[in-house]
Amino acid sequence: MTDNSRIGEVLSTLDAGLPQALDRLMEFLRIPSVSTDPAYAAEVRRAAEWLCAELTSLGFQAALRDTPGHPMVVAHSPKGTRRPLLFYGHYDVQPVDPLELWHHPPFEPRIEHTPQGRVIRGRGASDDKGQLMTFIEAFRAWKAVHGSLPSDLVLLFEGEEESGSPSLRPFLRENAGELRAGIAMICDTGLYADGRPAITTQLRGLCGEEIVIRAADRDLHSGSFGGLAANPVQILVNALATVKDASGRVTLPGFYEGVEELSPELRADWDALGFDPAEFLARVGLKHPVGETGRTGLEMVWNRPTFEINGITGGYTSEGFKTVLPAEARAKVSFRLTGTQDPDRIRETFRAHVRAHVPEDCTVEFHGHGASPASRMDISDPAFAAAKAALSQEWGREAAYIGAGGSIPIAGDFKEILGMDSMLIGFARDDDRIHSPNEKYDLDSFARGARSWARILAALG
Amino acid sequence: MTDNSRIGEVLSTLDAGLPQALDRLMEFLRIPSVSTDPAYAAEVRRAAEWLCAELTSLGFQAALRDTPGHPMVVAHSPKGTRRPLLFYGHYDVQPVDPLELWHHPPFEPRIEHTPQGRVIRGRGASDDKGQLMTFIEAFRAWKAVHGSLPSDLVLLFEGEEESGSPSLRPFLRENAGELRAGIAMICDTGLYADGRPAITTQLRGLCGEEIVIRAADRDLHSGSFGGLAANPVQILVNALATVKDASGRVTLPGFYEGVEELSPELRADWDALGFDPAEFLARVGLKHPVGETGRTGLEMVWNRPTFEINGITGGYTSEGFKTVLPAEARAKVSFRLTGTQDPDRIRETFRAHVRAHVPEDCTVEFHGHGASPASRMDISDPAFAAAKAALSQEWGREAAYIGAGGSIPIAGDFKEILGMDSMLIGFARDDDRIHSPNEKYDLDSFARGARSWARILAALG
Repeated sequence: MTDNSRIGEVLSTLDAGLPQALDRLMEFLRIPSVSTDPAYAAEVRRAAEWLCAELTSLGFQAALRDTPGHPMVVAHSPKGTRRPLLFYGHYDVQPVDPLELWHHPPFEPRIEHTPQGRVIRGRGASDDKGQLMTFIEAFRAWKAVHGSLPSDLVLLFEGEEESGSPSLRPFLRENAGELRAGIAMICDTGLYADGRPAITTQLRGLCGEEIVIRAADRDLHSGSFGGLAANPVQILVNALATVKDASGRVTLPGFYEGVEELSPELRADWDALGFDPAEFLARVGLKHPVGETGRTGLEMVWNRPTFEINGITGGYTSEGFKTVLPAEARAKVSFRLTGTQDPDRIRETFRAHVRAHVPEDCTVEFHGHGASPASRMDISDPAFAAAKAALSQEWGREAAYIGAGGSIPIAGDFKEILGMDSMLIGFARDDDRIHSPNEKYDLDSFARGARSWARILAALG
Repeated sequence: MTDNSRIGEVLSTLDAGLPQALDRLMEFLRIPSVSTDPAYAAEVRRAAEWLCAELTSLGFQAALRDTPGHPMVVAHSPKGTRRPLLFYGHYDVQPVDPLELWHHPPFEPRIEHTPQGRVIRGRGASDDKGQLMTFIEAFRAWKAVHGSLPSDLVLLFEGEEESGSPSLRPFLRENAGELRAGIAMICDTGLYADGRPAITTQLRGLCGEEIVIRAADRDLHSGSFGGLAANPVQILVNALATVKDASGRVTLPGFYEGVEELSPELRADWDALGFDPAEFLARVGLKHPVGETGRTGLEMVWNRPTFEINGITGGYTSEGFKTVLPAEARAKVSFRLTGTQDPDRIRETFRAHVRAHVPEDCTVEFHGHGASPASRMDISDPAFAAAKAALSQEWGREAAYIGAGGSIPIAGDFKEILGMDSMLIGFARDDDRIHSPNEKYDLDSFARGARSWARILAALG
């Protein structure tokens, strides 16, 4: 740590300002910026405006940038001599259903005392509003100590991450010159399961798809038509039951092309993490891994592709019983991808598989929802080692290179469109219930997250 | 036709009173007596009260009879020397969803002029309010001409037919002495497809079942858990996809025990009806029969058992996309039964089939929704021939003995509990959209239905 970074003062400033930082986060969390549901469009914009005002007050040149969907927020600190750093986060959040399972309204965040420490409870606390505020608070403290923001920062916040980021790639293309930096810092991942600080160096890709199968032109009485007329729910069920075989492998032809085995080095690192699938699953009330036979638990979630049914609906689903033969059935499904699997090609193969189940007098309609290949970072960039050391120092234990089962397509987009590598550093925990009712973010993650960014800023200085 | 039946006068009275009869039916249809949804309980009762008042005003001894569910309405005409006749109908109706597909509010019935003639449009018009009013109007006209009701009538109306009739069997047992008659007339079936009058002599049974599969104790992020944690929708889909094989046969062990082949006589009769499955399916936008290989279309719907998925739901099903690994999946399914198939035994076999798909760390819960064996009438009772002749006379063409794919468990219950055969005579048409949006009943069915009952009353006199 060099003297001119004055890192000690920056950290003290962060510690002293924590109550005010929490107040700001709570205000941000109160905005219900659910991007996937058009009913919340105005609230999504309000979250962008809140962020923009916050950054402007810190001295950034910040602006809302309209897209065909929800706006981007882009901000710049003054030019200098630093290697330019881009920071990315997303200000939109997941839907809150099933609402009845929340213990308090999801957009009325609270600080709760739990046996594991204080947590910030509310939708978006962990994914991703709490996380993106860690680096904003680090910039604020830096400025308080140094009198000015760190130079050469580019901040990019999107409002469509939870709905497939339809506007992101066009926006990166149109603003490539403005956004290109030395490296991107993406704060949307977690600590390792046991709380060890971590840099995520690989992410699974995603191919999301919605299927609508229609048979008769109306709901039919299953007495009059049952046994004679096609049932679209049965057709859908038959198609979805055959995407995986009994060993957990996806049966689509060519599906595994591009899937890569772990390098011996990473396999050794991951084995050393001591991941116990039974213990991991026990936290959500389960016991047995259901992935491909012969794979370790971490491979199943970080390095193997998979197929999941995310939602299904058709026919009568309310109270009581209705002997209806439904006119329509719908499902939302997704593949998680690894290596160099091609999402577009897998989408076509999946559609062909479904079509083969649909009789000639019925119809099937497909809607694509996001397609991103998997990402793998080049960890030979010295910035990785510097950030790893800074994280180890803040958390008092050796930081790890880990994988992630979720998709952060932005990392692939930065590489492909801006030719820029990404460092994925975040402070979420496995029990944060992201995408679920009662989402939370540990107050410790928030406070030490901000301190971590301050140290990383100094280390990359 | 004997002189003392004065049938000509009764028919003229019916014709002259048709406008008033329609007004009464419309009033009845305006009561939203949806029995399966507890929110409508008071309306179901109001429909029973309306019916009771109507019958009392006609001179019946009528009363609401409470049950643990919705009330029965029982009415008696004066004792006499006639072979006692029981008339049955149900005053409850199906739910109306999807409401957005109705062209007008389902409980604001209308008379519409269509190219095929005038129709009464609204929920319950055909199933079963319009039908039960045909015999009530016949009694009214009979009384107007003869000065008194036909003697020895027992009327039974239930309000739970569309929700599995949970109170019916106990009620029949507790009131067997009061309800037992020479034969039961059940008005809840249809004309044959081409409009030929018909007496339904066999009905499929039903075994309805609801399945709830639960995996993790919360919805999970499919990135963090996909490939490792059990997906209850996938488990459900796998179980439901294997209930039938590629030839359309149900795979459950012992399922076909008790299924009977058609008698050569009935097969000949049915073949003579000239049923064209392609033409039948074309009316609902389909082409190809999907039942068991090697069976005729009428066998598929009248004489073969089947399995249908009536509803399915799980995970995220709203607008947009959510990469959730759901905690829970639900389905409502039903088997249509024939011959002497035992619904309780089939329920157990099905449950065992589903359980075999559920891993040890997940749970499955079952809810039974109705169980009734198939019914087959003894058509050697001379009342069948008499009623057939009366129907042929009214409609100007030979009436037929037909089957029905739907369940009217009441016929089996009458046989089992009251030792009484049933005649199933109704005037619904295949395009009545019962259980679907925009249900209708032909005005011709209503008017000639009432005239048919008048003739049958005279013929059985």
